[in-house]
Amino acid sequence: MIRAAVIGYGYWGPNLVRNLAEVPGCEIAGVADLRPERLALVRKRFPGVHGTADAAELIDDPRIDAILIATPLSTHYDLALRALRAGKHVLVEKPLAASSDQAARLIDEAESKRLVLMVDHTFTYTSAVEKIRELVVNDGLGTLYYYDSVRVNLGLFQSDVNVVWDLAVHDLSIMDYVLPSKPRTVSATGMSHIGSHANIAYLTLNFDQSLIAHVHVNWLAPVKIRQTLIGGSRKMIVYDDVEPSEKLKIYDKGVDVVDSEQLVHQALVSYRLGDVWAPRLDITEALQTELRHFLHCIESHDTPRTDGRSGLRVIKILEAACQSMSADGRPVDLDSGVPS
Amino acid sequence: MIRAAVIGYGYWGPNLVRNLAEVPGCEIAGVADLRPERLALVRKRFPGVHGTADAAELIDDPRIDAILIATPLSTHYDLALRALRAGKHVLVEKPLAASSDQAARLIDEAESKRLVLMVDHTFTYTSAVEKIRELVVNDGLGTLYYYDSVRVNLGLFQSDVNVVWDLAVHDLSIMDYVLPSKPRTVSATGMSHIGSHANIAYLTLNFDQSLIAHVHVNWLAPVKIRQTLIGGSRKMIVYDDVEPSEKLKIYDKGVDVVDSEQLVHQALVSYRLGDVWAPRLDITEALQTELRHFLHCIESHDTPRTDGRSGLRVIKILEAACQSMSADGRPVDLDSGVPS
Amino acid sequence: MIRAAVIGYGYWGPNLVRNLAEVPGCEIAGVADLRPERLALVRKRFPGVHGTADAAELIDDPRIDAILIATPLSTHYDLALRALRAGKHVLVEKPLAASSDQAARLIDEAESKRLVLMVDHTFTYTSAVEKIRELVVNDGLGTLYYYDSVRVNLGLFQSDVNVVWDLAVHDLSIMDYVLPSKPRTVSATGMSHIGSHANIAYLTLNFDQSLIAHVHVNWLAPVKIRQTLIGGSRKMIVYDDVEPSEKLKIYDKGVDVVDSEQLVHQALVSYRLGDVWAPRLDITEALQTELRHFLHCIESHDTPRTDGRSGLRVIKILEAACQSMSADGRPVDLDSGVPS
Amino acid sequence: MIRAAVIGYGYWGPNLVRNLAEVPGCEIAGVADLRPERLALVRKRFPGVHGTADAAELIDDPRIDAILIATPLSTHYDLALRALRAGKHVLVEKPLAASSDQAARLIDEAESKRLVLMVDHTFTYTSAVEKIRELVVNDGLGTLYYYDSVRVNLGLFQSDVNVVWDLAVHDLSIMDYVLPSKPRTVSATGMSHIGSHANIAYLTLNFDQSLIAHVHVNWLAPVKIRQTLIGGSRKMIVYDDVEPSEKLKIYDKGVDVVDSEQLVHQALVSYRLGDVWAPRLDITEALQTELRHFLHCIESHDTPRTDGRSGLRVIKILEAACQSMSADGRPVDLDSGVPS
Repeated sequence: MIRAAVIGYGYWGPNLVRNLAEVPGCEIAGVADLRPERLALVRKRFPGVHGTADAAELIDDPRIDAILIATPLSTHYDLALRALRAGKHVLVEKPLAASSDQAARLIDEAESKRLVLMVDHTFTYTSAVEKIRELVVNDGLGTLYYYDSVRVNLGLFQSDVNVVWDLAVHDLSIMDYVLPSKPRTVSATGMSHIGSHANIAYLTLNFDQSLIAHVHVNWLAPVKIRQTLIGGSRKMIVYDDVEPSEKLKIYDKGVDVVDSEQLVHQALVSYRLGDVWAPRLDITEALQTELRHFLHCIESHDTPRTDGRSGLRVIKILEAACQSMSADGRPVDLDSGVPS
Repeated sequence: MIRAAVIGYGYWGPNLVRNLAEVPGCEIAGVADLRPERLALVRKRFPGVHGTADAAELIDDPRIDAILIATPLSTHYDLALRALRAGKHVLVEKPLAASSDQAARLIDEAESKRLVLMVDHTFTYTSAVEKIRELVVNDGLGTLYYYDSVRVNLGLFQSDVNVVWDLAVHDLSIMDYVLPSKPRTVSATGMSHIGSHANIAYLTLNFDQSLIAHVHVNWLAPVKIRQTLIGGSRKMIVYDDVEPSEKLKIYDKGVDVVDSEQLVHQALVSYRLGDVWAPRLDITEALQTELRHFLHCIESHDTPRTDGRSGLRVIKILEAACQSMSADGRPVDLDSGVPS
Repeated sequence: MIRAAVIGYGYWGPNLVRNLAEVPGCEIAGVADLRPERLALVRKRFPGVHGTADAAELIDDPRIDAILIATPLSTHYDLALRALRAGKHVLVEKPLAASSDQAARLIDEAESKRLVLMVDHTFTYTSAVEKIRELVVNDGLGTLYYYDSVRVNLGLFQSDVNVVWDLAVHDLSIMDYVLPSKPRTVSATGMSHIGSHANIAYLTLNFDQSLIAHVHVNWLAPVKIRQTLIGGSRKMIVYDDVEPSEKLKIYDKGVDVVDSEQLVHQALVSYRLGDVWAPRLDITEALQTELRHFLHCIESHDTPRTDGRSGLRVIKILEAACQSMSADGRPVDLDSGVPS
Repeated sequence: MIRAAVIGYGYWGPNLVRNLAEVPGCEIAGVADLRPERLALVRKRFPGVHGTADAAELIDDPRIDAILIATPLSTHYDLALRALRAGKHVLVEKPLAASSDQAARLIDEAESKRLVLMVDHTFTYTSAVEKIRELVVNDGLGTLYYYDSVRVNLGLFQSDVNVVWDLAVHDLSIMDYVLPSKPRTVSATGMSHIGSHANIAYLTLNFDQSLIAHVHVNWLAPVKIRQTLIGGSRKMIVYDDVEPSEKLKIYDKGVDVVDSEQLVHQALVSYRLGDVWAPRLDITEALQTELRHFLHCIESHDTPRTDGRSGLRVIKILEAACQSMSADGRPVDLDSGVPS
């Protein structure tokens, strides 16, 4: 039996607690939140669960094996580091930390202590993303052309991060999981219409091959859009996460280059139009799959799918994107971290 | 009675001819196309209409008042210039010409001859775009925040232009018509996966105010998307041109800044959620409205809504976007025409 | 503080328990289910809540004020009657009972004991249905023409009721709440393709005025459809409960009779086309609203919106519909209960 | 070269003429309409085509081979009979005639003269319906359970027919083409809210096997819906004709009966959930396919897919449905033609 505690019962914490309650072999050992009204809510919903305003009480409790952190980003590092030092396995809400330095130090701490450090890149645990990865890995799409994501809605405005750190992190973590290579440069433009943090941003990522990726994130959109287009030479994907049933559609569509010696006014390509296929997807809630994976990694000493290193890779892109936004959209090299 | 001839009976020409046939006060005086099979089609569909392989025959015919050009872009300038010199009023398929120099020379020629020079920016004649302009002009949206358009589909690949010149021209011409100010800089990234012309591109336009515009165009998308989001401080618009009935939705949604002295972890904004309104739109085909407007301008000597100057403004942005694509996405100033 | 217990922790019971846990002024005093694995689930999710296989233990517990019943239909009557006799207020999952006789006896028992007897007609507590009722009551729709509902999906097959008792009950309870008059006759056709109970059925209800209502229910449909069209002389409604955001759309559309002395081949009507309006809807979960209403009625001795009498009216239509199905679809009079 | 004339240039006639103009081996020999403004429109659109107010002039013209009739229903019989007597092949807009007697006499006349008599059941020439038939014929769906169609919109109100004769005829002609057996009885209910003809109607058709069919037609709906669900034991179809691209979706979904000796409260069935498949459909306009088929039948003496007999079968169901509507929805036997 793994005893797990949750720190932070704001927007995401309740989802962690609700799902933890369903994970076999796991017991909720406590929930911490600074706000009395949130603790009251915990007590009302889960009369048997211990609530406290003091996170340290849970972190330092020797009977607790794992700490799940769902607090504001600026507190991730301190809480996670303290938990690792106390010998706990740690799952941190995305992004893993507020800087790549912080992330690197957490990774070091976890590795030296042989503890599980996992970041909650929730989408990588959906069956839709799993299926996309399967198609890419098995070369079902052919040569990858582009990865284009739109992730917009009204709010939730964050006070301590911009829209890139809040929303684009999802797309970057999905790409980290499904794409066969890592981006080389990132450029970004954005604007802050409300407050000081950008609420709209556009990221372009370049890869070594012909692949280009683009992400549009926006906190000021009137509708919720979660649409990703992935184009390959053989097949193409539309992944619409708002769609209740057929989230994933695979198009047997594309173009074939007909002739390289084309005359002006003639078509260079012939279109390949085919069937559309929507694979059946498992409907298990992603967070449930993820928490079971967390427990499995604790018990079997496996490396999590979304370990600290994937959290770090994503943060490096977030940092580079913000650098590019400050530099009029000039591309930033992801190795050197400097604008071109 | 205005006698009009159409040059080019490929993809767009048939739409011009079919619509011309419905315009009161107008007679189709001829159709030119180099390809015998296209002329055969004209003869089959419109037994009474004169078809010819020789465009000059129509341009030089003194009984003809107006020439409509729907040929590949590289031929626009020569044909339009010749028609203007022959004293014809001219309507040119978008983009007006292959360069801003050419466009400027066409404008000069038309003005010196007091002839109508109009560019076929079709979307500006839709009732949806007309309604958007009305909302912007009457300040129904409040301060404009962003204009975001996605215009993607599979094909039609063009042999003489890239996807920016083919598709983004629509968005730029709509913005030219509906937005209260003109862009200051443009930056663009893209890639050519098939052939030598970019088939996917992302444009970002910056304006003097807080407005940011972005356009995603793609010839390699498995689905047809024509979706524009326009965000304002008071209201927001979703314009979906693929939607058969409710193309335009106006959202009474937004955010209000609650307090500038917010503490960390508190919401900076309060959400304003309201009704959605889909105004009834006239269903007249845009091209019909446009051709009637063309005739009206010929008869009344009015300046067309989409005159040569709007054609030129759009081309300048297209040129700057391509410059930026060649310069790793660095923003290009639209006045000076040089990358920053 | 009202102490409430839930009997039945199968498909619907967990929703009752989860929502009860959020209702202020209410405490979950126990959950009963015959199946050990369901009780284990209760214990895992709500460590502090008492679970028992013996419903009578809860019904007879003098410290408990209210009993919520979410068991199979055949057991509703016995459990509810026992609870009322024990002086408990009772909320019963729809339909209230397995026959109108049973329902009438429960009403008598509750009235004689001055206890609240409420049926869980969940949809009447949604903000969409509330808004529809508001429009009807304020005569916003004009003369009502038709009410047409499609409620189909794959499963859940029930072993003790047919699809009419399972799904049409929702539409009948919504109509009972929003329509200004009650139906006069009902006719129904259906078929059982799997098992012995009809899995597809079509109901037609006639009212005194020109209003006609129709309900299509089906357990064997490949997609989930929850679409209701309501036509009035002034406005029309499309209520799509599967739609995530704009569930309710109000169309300012209709026809006007132009002239009663029309010649053949002339239109009898002119079309009135107008705007579409999607009112903002409160997103509180209906069951939360309903449970708070139940508590309010207990505390204030108010008659619930969905009291025993509305449960009885709905059951009478269900019984008549099944009679009609057995009589080749002949209409059954809802007063006399005999086929015409 | 077949010379064809069109009688009636109202709503449907223009589609016939426009498509005829594209059919190889066919020449438009004339268009007749009583209304001068409609003839003026013909002349404007097709300067070379002969227009006349006198249909008889075309019918009696010995140089004309085929007559296409797109006039109000009440005139179909007289015009078609006269054309057949004049030795012309005839295509009649749906329904073939205003009564089964009339239809039978047209069939006799055509057969005795060995002329093609074809009814314009347009939908049977779409690639979607063709694909559905293919699936049914190849037993891809398994045992057929139900065929359910919703065909509603605002208008077009007809002055000489009710909504069943106007809209349900489409569904009945599709069923006539795709289903393996013919209906045994039909029952119908409806109501006329505007004018004297029913504007809303519900038809139920019973077949010898377990198949049940249902059609909802409505001229007073605020939205256009064209949705057909077809359920089989192996696969299910959703055919949405309003959907621009994926009109046909085939669901690998269903239920399996688990055990006939089920206890109460246990599921009788297990659900089979699978992939969804949207086959690529040819996008040729159905009317083009149909007119080419008409010409082919004239030239090769083949029996048309939608010959007079299919037109007659459909009319017999229309008549029986109207009888049932007058008899309170009692089922009418399609052999005897009397209500049960």
